[in-house]
Amino acid sequence: MAKTNIVVGADIGGTNTVLGFVTEQGECLNESRFKTLEHFQVDQFFTQLVKSINDGYDELKNDYELIGIGIGAPNGNYYRKSVENPPNLPWGIVDVEKILNKSFNVPIALTNDANATAIGELLFGAGKGMKDFIVVTLGTGLGGGLVVRGKLLHGYDGFAGELGHINYERNGRQCTCGLKGCLETYASGSGIVRTAKELIDGSSIKSSLRKVAGKSLTSKKIYEEARAGDKLALQCFELTGKALGSMLANIVAVTDPEAIFLFGGLANAGDLIINPTKKYME
Amino acid sequence: MAKTNIVVGADIGGTNTVLGFVTEQGECLNESRFKTLEHFQVDQFFTQLVKSINDGYDELKNDYELIGIGIGAPNGNYYRKSVENPPNLPWGIVDVEKILNKSFNVPIALTNDANATAIGELLFGAGKGMKDFIVVTLGTGLGGGLVVRGKLLHGYDGFAGELGHINYERNGRQCTCGLKGCLETYASGSGIVRTAKELIDGSSIKSSLRKVAGKSLTSKKIYEEARAGDKLALQCFELTGKALGSMLANIVAVTDPEAIFLFGGLANAGDLIINPTKKYME
Repeated sequence: MAKTNIVVGADIGGTNTVLGFVTEQGECLNESRFKTLEHFQVDQFFTQLVKSINDGYDELKNDYELIGIGIGAPNGNYYRKSVENPPNLPWGIVDVEKILNKSFNVPIALTNDANATAIGELLFGAGKGMKDFIVVTLGTGLGGGLVVRGKLLHGYDGFAGELGHINYERNGRQCTCGLKGCLETYASGSGIVRTAKELIDGSSIKSSLRKVAGKSLTSKKIYEEARAGDKLALQCFELTGKALGSMLANIVAVTDPEAIFLFGGLANAGDLIINPTKKYME
Repeated sequence: MAKTNIVVGADIGGTNTVLGFVTEQGECLNESRFKTLEHFQVDQFFTQLVKSINDGYDELKNDYELIGIGIGAPNGNYYRKSVENPPNLPWGIVDVEKILNKSFNVPIALTNDANATAIGELLFGAGKGMKDFIVVTLGTGLGGGLVVRGKLLHGYDGFAGELGHINYERNGRQCTCGLKGCLETYASGSGIVRTAKELIDGSSIKSSLRKVAGKSLTSKKIYEEARAGDKLALQCFELTGKALGSMLANIVAVTDPEAIFLFGGLANAGDLIINPTKKYME
């Protein structure tokens, strides 16, 4: 019997790398993950990625034929199929297509993580049937993916949708990209932690977050305290939504989308982030 | 002999309305203009527009066949072929297609003035052969037109490219659109006049502009004084370029174009506006 075609999709995140084998209908057959940070060096990371793909495919190859690999990665360039100076990984410029084609003789597609999310929504998710929408991923950083006339927008150089590096505050917070005041230094998982630190040091608002030491002060912790009614934590979400909402309003003025979808850890905070974002968009 | 096809294009500006009869090759056969402001009421304006089209066509109709009308107008909606609450004209919502089809049984195309400029550049101008570029018109206001994958971007609701109403300054200058701090209240012909007034009232910089009374303080006057080396006038261009450049950097992060083209009265100031714009983009 003829084998069924599958592709493997890998999402290279700042913390985790997640893989899934997927059919043409969007059914995910198996999933695996490993810590990106444990394989910090480029060579080690891709050795592990190749191994994980092989391990997953071993279970499937009697019935399925691997016909392609899709990668979502920070600073992924669609045209060059490369990862270029990702801010949170010391990789420099990596020709991902070249590396993977040494082990797999199939086409490679690569784009940034938010673009990959946007493609997913377009084909199988909330964006199905829509022609013009925006995806914003609120993880450690902030990513953007723009669908225009039913297709992902790559732009001239493959870097469209870099919404995290829109300037929000002139001479604002230092960003890992080298610039100051980038949106993602305010509206992201790492941004909300910086906001909390500033409020702890620079205000007299009472908060149980004041007792939380350095590395324990995470966006998850801020979320939990905000849910419990902590005023400082709530203010963190208010300021994060202000940054996100006011910048989304500008993006709407540029591309006039039908919808904006928020994804990622911080988006899971629900009303806490959605309400202030909506307020400042209007 | 068969007649040659022509279309008439009309650019409805805040000050002047300009008409041209154009062949398929982009050759303009005749041009005329009238003051928009003299025909401020909708009915009067369109009566004059119909008359001007008829007058121009009378000279051509022995040899040419009118096959379409194209309109560039402030707040022009491509999908609805309407002009909707233009900030500088008390028109409300005008169904332009319906009005013009009473007199001319040809297809009507309508979009905002910057989009119309972008189409012109795409077909006949500097954007020929480019797939992704942005046009910014610096007239009384600031308009934007985005070409994406070789086609004008209209967005979901027909209002993509409204770059003039990106927020530049939180709680900044009052805009005619109702919002505060819109880019066009800083980076436009009217914006640079407001900047000059603020500098005259709020600084002690010596300037020959201090002697210029109310309505004589125009962007043209500021340009002339800047060319003559007037420090306050030069500062006006610096601040205008700062607003324009920093916002263009954000737009580049969203759509990643190959080129940005500046048009309109203020763009004719050349280096005076281009140099600070470039500086603040980087």
